[in-house]
Amino acid sequence: MNGVTGRMGTNQHLVRSILAIREQGGVALSTGEKVMPVPILLGRNAEKLQSMARQYGLEHWSTDIDKVLNDPEVEVYFDAQLTQLRAEWVERAIKAGKNIYCEKPLAPDSKTAFALAELAANSGLKCGIVQDKLFLPGLRKLKQVIESGFLGRIFSVRGEFGYWVFEGDLQPQQRPSWNYRKEDGGGIIIDMFAHWQYVFEGVIAPVTAVSCRGVTHIPKRIDEAGKWYDCTADDAAYATLELQGGIIASMNSSWCVRVDRDELLELQVDGTQGTAVAGLRECKIQHKSATPRAIWNPDIPSPIQFRDYWQVVPDATEYDNGFKVQWELYLRHLVEGTPFPHDLTAGARGVQLAEIAIESWNKRCWVEVP
Amino acid sequence: MNGVTGRMGTNQHLVRSILAIREQGGVALSTGEKVMPVPILLGRNAEKLQSMARQYGLEHWSTDIDKVLNDPEVEVYFDAQLTQLRAEWVERAIKAGKNIYCEKPLAPDSKTAFALAELAANSGLKCGIVQDKLFLPGLRKLKQVIESGFLGRIFSVRGEFGYWVFEGDLQPQQRPSWNYRKEDGGGIIIDMFAHWQYVFEGVIAPVTAVSCRGVTHIPKRIDEAGKWYDCTADDAAYATLELQGGIIASMNSSWCVRVDRDELLELQVDGTQGTAVAGLRECKIQHKSATPRAIWNPDIPSPIQFRDYWQVVPDATEYDNGFKVQWELYLRHLVEGTPFPHDLTAGARGVQLAEIAIESWNKRCWVEVP
Amino acid sequence: MNGVTGRMGTNQHLVRSILAIREQGGVALSTGEKVMPVPILLGRNAEKLQSMARQYGLEHWSTDIDKVLNDPEVEVYFDAQLTQLRAEWVERAIKAGKNIYCEKPLAPDSKTAFALAELAANSGLKCGIVQDKLFLPGLRKLKQVIESGFLGRIFSVRGEFGYWVFEGDLQPQQRPSWNYRKEDGGGIIIDMFAHWQYVFEGVIAPVTAVSCRGVTHIPKRIDEAGKWYDCTADDAAYATLELQGGIIASMNSSWCVRVDRDELLELQVDGTQGTAVAGLRECKIQHKSATPRAIWNPDIPSPIQFRDYWQVVPDATEYDNGFKVQWELYLRHLVEGTPFPHDLTAGARGVQLAEIAIESWNKRCWVEVP
Amino acid sequence: MNGVTGRMGTNQHLVRSILAIREQGGVALSTGEKVMPVPILLGRNAEKLQSMARQYGLEHWSTDIDKVLNDPEVEVYFDAQLTQLRAEWVERAIKAGKNIYCEKPLAPDSKTAFALAELAANSGLKCGIVQDKLFLPGLRKLKQVIESGFLGRIFSVRGEFGYWVFEGDLQPQQRPSWNYRKEDGGGIIIDMFAHWQYVFEGVIAPVTAVSCRGVTHIPKRIDEAGKWYDCTADDAAYATLELQGGIIASMNSSWCVRVDRDELLELQVDGTQGTAVAGLRECKIQHKSATPRAIWNPDIPSPIQFRDYWQVVPDATEYDNGFKVQWELYLRHLVEGTPFPHDLTAGARGVQLAEIAIESWNKRCWVEVP
Repeated sequence: MNGVTGRMGTNQHLVRSILAIREQGGVALSTGEKVMPVPILLGRNAEKLQSMARQYGLEHWSTDIDKVLNDPEVEVYFDAQLTQLRAEWVERAIKAGKNIYCEKPLAPDSKTAFALAELAANSGLKCGIVQDKLFLPGLRKLKQVIESGFLGRIFSVRGEFGYWVFEGDLQPQQRPSWNYRKEDGGGIIIDMFAHWQYVFEGVIAPVTAVSCRGVTHIPKRIDEAGKWYDCTADDAAYATLELQGGIIASMNSSWCVRVDRDELLELQVDGTQGTAVAGLRECKIQHKSATPRAIWNPDIPSPIQFRDYWQVVPDATEYDNGFKVQWELYLRHLVEGTPFPHDLTAGARGVQLAEIAIESWNKRCWVEVP
Repeated sequence: MNGVTGRMGTNQHLVRSILAIREQGGVALSTGEKVMPVPILLGRNAEKLQSMARQYGLEHWSTDIDKVLNDPEVEVYFDAQLTQLRAEWVERAIKAGKNIYCEKPLAPDSKTAFALAELAANSGLKCGIVQDKLFLPGLRKLKQVIESGFLGRIFSVRGEFGYWVFEGDLQPQQRPSWNYRKEDGGGIIIDMFAHWQYVFEGVIAPVTAVSCRGVTHIPKRIDEAGKWYDCTADDAAYATLELQGGIIASMNSSWCVRVDRDELLELQVDGTQGTAVAGLRECKIQHKSATPRAIWNPDIPSPIQFRDYWQVVPDATEYDNGFKVQWELYLRHLVEGTPFPHDLTAGARGVQLAEIAIESWNKRCWVEVP
Repeated sequence: MNGVTGRMGTNQHLVRSILAIREQGGVALSTGEKVMPVPILLGRNAEKLQSMARQYGLEHWSTDIDKVLNDPEVEVYFDAQLTQLRAEWVERAIKAGKNIYCEKPLAPDSKTAFALAELAANSGLKCGIVQDKLFLPGLRKLKQVIESGFLGRIFSVRGEFGYWVFEGDLQPQQRPSWNYRKEDGGGIIIDMFAHWQYVFEGVIAPVTAVSCRGVTHIPKRIDEAGKWYDCTADDAAYATLELQGGIIASMNSSWCVRVDRDELLELQVDGTQGTAVAGLRECKIQHKSATPRAIWNPDIPSPIQFRDYWQVVPDATEYDNGFKVQWELYLRHLVEGTPFPHDLTAGARGVQLAEIAIESWNKRCWVEVP
Repeated sequence: MNGVTGRMGTNQHLVRSILAIREQGGVALSTGEKVMPVPILLGRNAEKLQSMARQYGLEHWSTDIDKVLNDPEVEVYFDAQLTQLRAEWVERAIKAGKNIYCEKPLAPDSKTAFALAELAANSGLKCGIVQDKLFLPGLRKLKQVIESGFLGRIFSVRGEFGYWVFEGDLQPQQRPSWNYRKEDGGGIIIDMFAHWQYVFEGVIAPVTAVSCRGVTHIPKRIDEAGKWYDCTADDAAYATLELQGGIIASMNSSWCVRVDRDELLELQVDGTQGTAVAGLRECKIQHKSATPRAIWNPDIPSPIQFRDYWQVVPDATEYDNGFKVQWELYLRHLVEGTPFPHDLTAGARGVQLAEIAIESWNKRCWVEVP
């Protein structure tokens, strides 16, 4: 596990996924047996690794990654390093014959990402990429509603993602400052469109074309050292997408929006038979036969309380952490060969969609997804 | 008053405006005097006109419009006919030396509309066009919030307009079928973008460029005669707009959307100091210093109820019908020369924005407003 | 730590501050290092001290204060003794070269307090005084609202502090009886005006003049021994204050008032652009553009529910105990030299304001703050 | 009835009092008979008077006041003219042998007012002055609570009166502009202290000394003609009052305060046995035995919801308009000689209290009421 000293690496992958799987006695296979993952913590800071290993009661850690990659006992290389380092080490791991599981984005550009995906495909190894949002309870409920046929033919999607990231004067920023500097790999399009790609493809339909307008709304923020800096990366993006089947999606992403929603991400999916509104954790639906008859009359307060006519989709299960659920799927895929659609090609398509969105922004026109 | 037998003409212009003004004793001038409008009902169906005149206790009606236009006693020509007929009759009325007040759109195309506006400007007559949405209580409150400086520098707008128009099988359509036929002048872009033009210009900032994707989501509907017909006009439009001052607006208009909002039209306006969310009648605000600190953590239900942190803007007055308020402004403009920015050039700009939106849709790129 | 056997000393300073800091691993410095305070419990009752030390797992306690003050290992003298004893021991500690952190009031009179503050300033030692109310969540939110510019120019403050302290017959008194005896240092002016001094100066603006009317509303109470005693100290004070910038504050403090408020302390701050109402933990705001239009008409029940037009300021962080937050600031000041405005001069100004209030009460006129 | 063309004169005295009394068939006497008042409208504008007389179906009106005063059929002279004119006409009416009923303030200064009161007292005529706030339902309930002995010995009063009067830019002012100009008789002290005088005396206890700080918070406003003007009169006053019996009252009056209260006027009266909080229409109480035990602990949200522990005083009757109730009392006093404490001396004391408050403001000290 390379890069577990970072925030996501520690919290989501090590503690809430691998350690949680170990605590529950491993991942159950179809045979009833259980697979128990044994992690090796990798990184550059020996002191940090040793201290983490001690804290979590783990035996193995190392700063010599090449040595670990050449250890025939090691089966999987996991990567949650900074984006710039990932492609190189994933390539080395594939060439060393290791299976791969890694964070997104796969690479800083789609050319590199697709090359890596091809290498992986040709290697015969089992390679996967994190697509955690597919495992959010709200989106799982949405998928369940769609698969049930409740919506009929889907024709439109409205997506709103975002919240207010403080500039740092009144309150400290709640995101790292590099997110707002293009030169450091920041920008909301690069960050979020990789997610939107697999969310649309996995839950609704694949994206076929993009029209996107990025923008930097807040020109200056205060960094971790308390100093004002210039924001050079996009902090909001207003996109219209065409999805397979003639579906149109309006998808806004913003770190500069005050929230008048129930959740930080909301997707409204309208179909001929019904509509679903899904967030991170909840999903509610309205059927054609229960749709209120709205009449335009601004002379009087609306006689209909529109929000009252939605039915909440109940929990179908206890929803485990999304990262852990995907780790379990990957481990079963690794050991038993069960399907795992989240391969490196899927990861490369995520990088590609972000690139296309930026291209559309620059050219001021629609760009088709090849 | 030409076209008062139509739905809007009867309800909004005759009954709720002119008759209401007569009932309250006329429109008060700055001198304390009052102006009392005396309407002449015009149309093609004598029987209908006679019956309406009787019902509302009015003396004057006629099917001979030319004769009325040549009557020197008549001061204002009002037009609420079908769009296709308006330009011709407005032109004739101007040439007959009548002041003009008319419904939008001024003409089916912007070339005709601007020509008419020029004719009006050169005539020295007092000519105005209906821009009723500016007088909705919610948008008036929004304007008041903006003028108070509460929002700081505005940088983004999210607009959602629409509701579900039934196809006609489960429930009868609640809008006329011609709205869904391009050949009859239908389409949501032509209908609504004239409104968005003056709403943005009058309340927030003028539109400078448009990217718009129209679409026909529902291909067949049932008409007034109970027969299925082909929908040839756009029934939804997903637009991104650039406004003066670097503001980006996402504006969705749809007759195919189930409503998960408080009102049928909602505009969220985000600024550096605060945000306002306005509907037809209500408006609520959130200041920078009272913005909740959202943290992305899909592992737990949101600890913040985001909808609780908004303050409702109270009524500042009793809000009269918007059409009537604008009639009163027009009548004072007519008699006293008070300012009235809603002239025919403003009306022509509305037609133009709809054309530009359609051009953007066809060319699949951004189009600048000249 | 001298005086930790008292109620405030034990609960706020020892348990919720020093022990809580030790439990969390110390106070983090800017270098990443942590400072761990090691307390020595001081007092006159050896048995009590020993028992406390045992209870909280502490090694050091002593009844020989002079010896501790001469121990070169000891860096800070903390004092939470009875007011009458403080000045003497703080002076001795300064002369022994110890840094000082102490409870308020610094001394029973401002002359002594300013002399002590001068001694401290000349000593070069790091000396601070408790100003805990500045760290209450409600007042921190108020400060944030003021700094954001939401209120515009502030012109008035309404403060209400107090609650009903039972006389002792129906229910036992919930405060010690000496509070109500002048001869024992009691009185609400002496107790509270030191707080109001730094609250106004730190959050709104410094006090420049005072008009105060003290009073003893309840002439007899029952003491800890169950006996009626004569109340000789003021148990309520009604003050009007002038603050810098032409601000007028009405500030009532009372132990004889039944509470029709949300919190025991409430400050309403009105400005040209908006108003904030802050309590101990909450703060709510109302902007100029969202202020209801009140019309005086006692013939009908108010058509406006005034309390509905306030927006709650959300928590910006998890608010730690105010005493602990200030201890952490002091310890960082001690070790790293970070700013700490709560010095002994600030403490002396608190004593001074109480004296001025009493002078105003006696002279029946306004008294300026020198 | 002189001055009935003004806002108060028309609405409160003519329509809601005299005409309402006529409509109900007069005022019932103890004998069962009824007295029917027959008004003569007086003023300077004949046209206005004639139009009012016609509108309300009244026979008598005149612009020749002296003639009416000399008409032996006329029994009562009522005056609701502008303040500056009142004293002169009341004096002429007394000298003409007419009984007097008039609006407050009796005169612009207390010397004139007391002289007039003496003249009235010596005349043997029945002379009264309007003290409408005594007849507000909320204050009548408060009086009822006090008379029942519920409060025990009263020792303190907190009064808050006021609301936000708009400057005129965002919204038009809801009060006339002369209120904010000293040179036109404006100022909140002159307007309101006459009320506070009789409210305290009539409901709680007479005022014996005053400490008052007036202030002009808002320096510029927009007048009826839409022009900015300089505000020269006090728009807020912060007073502390001593009442008979050792009661202390804190009384704030302001036109520059955003309302976080249930009503525009609220009086909290604390006594040894209980407390009452009264507004214009409602009154609620809390008894000693039902007072929550508040403990100061800002570490946690208050475990007590203080507002829940108050009991609303129910309506004891249907509360008629306060002006009308007092008119009925006066008419019975006139015809039957029933007691009527609201004589001109009471009116003069109101003028005096306002003068004393202004004197205290100027001298920056307490001023005793002679």
